[in-house]
Amino acid sequence: MTISFLGLGEMGSALARSAIDAGHDVVVWNRSPARSAAFASSARVAGSAAEALEAGDVVVVCLFDAESVHRVLDPVADRLTGRHVINLTTTTPEASRDLAGWAAGHGADYLDGGVMAVPAMIGTPESLVYYSGSRAVFDGHRDLFETWGAAEYFGQDPGLASLHDLALLSAMYVMFAGFFHGAAMVGTVGTSAKEFAGRATAWLQALLPALAGYAEVIDGGDYTLPGQQSLAFSDITEIVEASRAAGLSTEVVDVVQRLIHRQIDAGHGSEGFARIIESIRNPGRAA
Amino acid sequence: MTISFLGLGEMGSALARSAIDAGHDVVVWNRSPARSAAFASSARVAGSAAEALEAGDVVVVCLFDAESVHRVLDPVADRLTGRHVINLTTTTPEASRDLAGWAAGHGADYLDGGVMAVPAMIGTPESLVYYSGSRAVFDGHRDLFETWGAAEYFGQDPGLASLHDLALLSAMYVMFAGFFHGAAMVGTVGTSAKEFAGRATAWLQALLPALAGYAEVIDGGDYTLPGQQSLAFSDITEIVEASRAAGLSTEVVDVVQRLIHRQIDAGHGSEGFARIIESIRNPGRAA
Ligand SMILES: NC(=O)c1ccc[n+]([C@@H]2O[C@H](COP(=O)([O-])OP(=O)(O)OC[C@H]3O[C@@H](n4cnc5c(N)ncnc54)[C@H](OP(=O)(O)O)[C@@H]3O)[C@@H](O)[C@H]2O)c1
Ligand SMILES: NC(=O)c1ccc[n+]([C@@H]2O[C@H](COP(=O)([O-])OP(=O)(O)OC[C@H]3O[C@@H](n4cnc5c(N)ncnc54)[C@H](OP(=O)(O)O)[C@@H]3O)[C@@H](O)[C@H]2O)c1
Repeated sequence: MTISFLGLGEMGSALARSAIDAGHDVVVWNRSPARSAAFASSARVAGSAAEALEAGDVVVVCLFDAESVHRVLDPVADRLTGRHVINLTTTTPEASRDLAGWAAGHGADYLDGGVMAVPAMIGTPESLVYYSGSRAVFDGHRDLFETWGAAEYFGQDPGLASLHDLALLSAMYVMFAGFFHGAAMVGTVGTSAKEFAGRATAWLQALLPALAGYAEVIDGGDYTLPGQQSLAFSDITEIVEASRAAGLSTEVVDVVQRLIHRQIDAGHGSEGFARIIESIRNPGRAA
Repeated sequence: MTISFLGLGEMGSALARSAIDAGHDVVVWNRSPARSAAFASSARVAGSAAEALEAGDVVVVCLFDAESVHRVLDPVADRLTGRHVINLTTTTPEASRDLAGWAAGHGADYLDGGVMAVPAMIGTPESLVYYSGSRAVFDGHRDLFETWGAAEYFGQDPGLASLHDLALLSAMYVMFAGFFHGAAMVGTVGTSAKEFAGRATAWLQALLPALAGYAEVIDGGDYTLPGQQSLAFSDITEIVEASRAAGLSTEVVDVVQRLIHRQIDAGHGSEGFARIIESIRNPGRAA
């Protein structure tokens, strides 16, 4: 069985390298030939995407975005018939579903993936890849997936891996934005970001266990259960005012205050803070 | 030496209890007498704020906000002369500075504090209180502070404890908002918040060490250093689109996308992600 890799960026290269190291028969292709050159001694380098497709029983795609996947695959779609396509490019759930339908229309079996790791982690125990789509493709290539790290399958809906991937990415980016906001605040009195990072790392670490508590309330759906910090108590006026007084943009904290106040305004001020998820779930109620 | 506690809410009660348990001579007062009753056997209960002020050499204030501090202290300000006032109410840096000036005007020495703990943590090794303002008051009452937990002094500017407190709180609230956003995303396909919390806790935990790396770049001020994820690569269009397609409010992730795009629009797309702190520092550049 031959595995063709389309896309040798940072991530595609790490994935291909890991498969080669595990002894798989690998063909590689990249738009810019310079990146393929590094594989000349360890894999077959295809001269075109069409050549790579024809050589592989399995096609691993790791390009920049959904558009670049179409740019590469559309012109050679007739060569997809009978192939297993594993797309590890970050795409939206919608785009993953579209690609799965498009691949099926060309006789290919499609598995979508979301890589929950940076390239340096590929092949280490810290690496994790989410999959969804064709169960047959997932079950048929576990040995390949295990060369990359842990593998988790979410179901036949090709959009599921992407949705779970993007949900974690959103939590990550938003957490980073909160850190930058705090660092900007203390920076106005000369506290270094390094000093703040030390405090923030310990502080956020200590708070992470609270997520499970919020989750329990959300799943239970009863925001009036005792023991919760109320929305009224969670009002962050002091944070917004202190940020403004320090000359900073307040937008990062304004959004949290808005989520809180939509619930207070709807009469839920005495209910628990976790209720702000309802502000996210119901954009129609936005001010 | 007698310590008077004004305010026996959740936090004030925990602080007073801890001081009593350590053998301090304590007087308590609360607006609603019901909350003082719990202290009848272990402390002297003052009938009024004035009485509590007169009985104490040190006055620990823990009320709801800056306004409630003024409501309680303004009418009895003439009794502040010669006293040490320790205000552990959450206030803005501005309000802390105002209160310090106001207290000085009435002959009192003022120390501001920010409690980085929930009431149940007071008196345990996990508890931490930030202080700023009068160095003499801080140095003179270390034994009292140590009954509450770790004590950290930031300097003579009375606003410093509050600023560092609110900066960590902003990082916390924003992190929680990011978690709720992600939970709302996966909730649309029936994944429980509990399942997402398990994933998110491990994921964010693994990402926390990145804060120190971002801090190093911010302190160095050179966002072109190699090895950084670029702003262009950090574009979160997929997250915004997937959230919208799922029928959710996109505001939590929109704000991050805006911070990123203000830097890209200013020509910094190839520079590191940590540069979004400049979008927060320079509200004037907001779109
Ligand atoms: N890096 C990470 O930390 C990470 C983590 C998780 C997921 N991912 C995802 O993995 C995917 C690849 O990321 P990466 O880090 O490898 O990015 P990268 O280093 O920027 O590589 C991008 C790849 O896409 C190719 N490409 C872009 N536009 C193209 C087009 N129009 N036609 C043909 N090829 C095109 C590039 O080819 P050229 O060499 O010719 O430009 C290159 O092979 C992305 O979807 C990313 O979100 C990355
Ligand atoms: N709880 C926490 O997890 C936590 C953590 C860190 C910091 N803090 C800060 O600690 C402070 C107190 O919090 P808490 O948890 O103790 O709140 P709380 O349980 O709601 O207690 C509020 C206290 O303020 C008093 N109060 C409110 N408005 C008043 C007014 N106009 N005049 C006189 N007294 C008034 C209340 O008196 P009544 O009993 O008469 O209503 C009560 O003693 C807040 O600034 C809070 O931000 C709390």
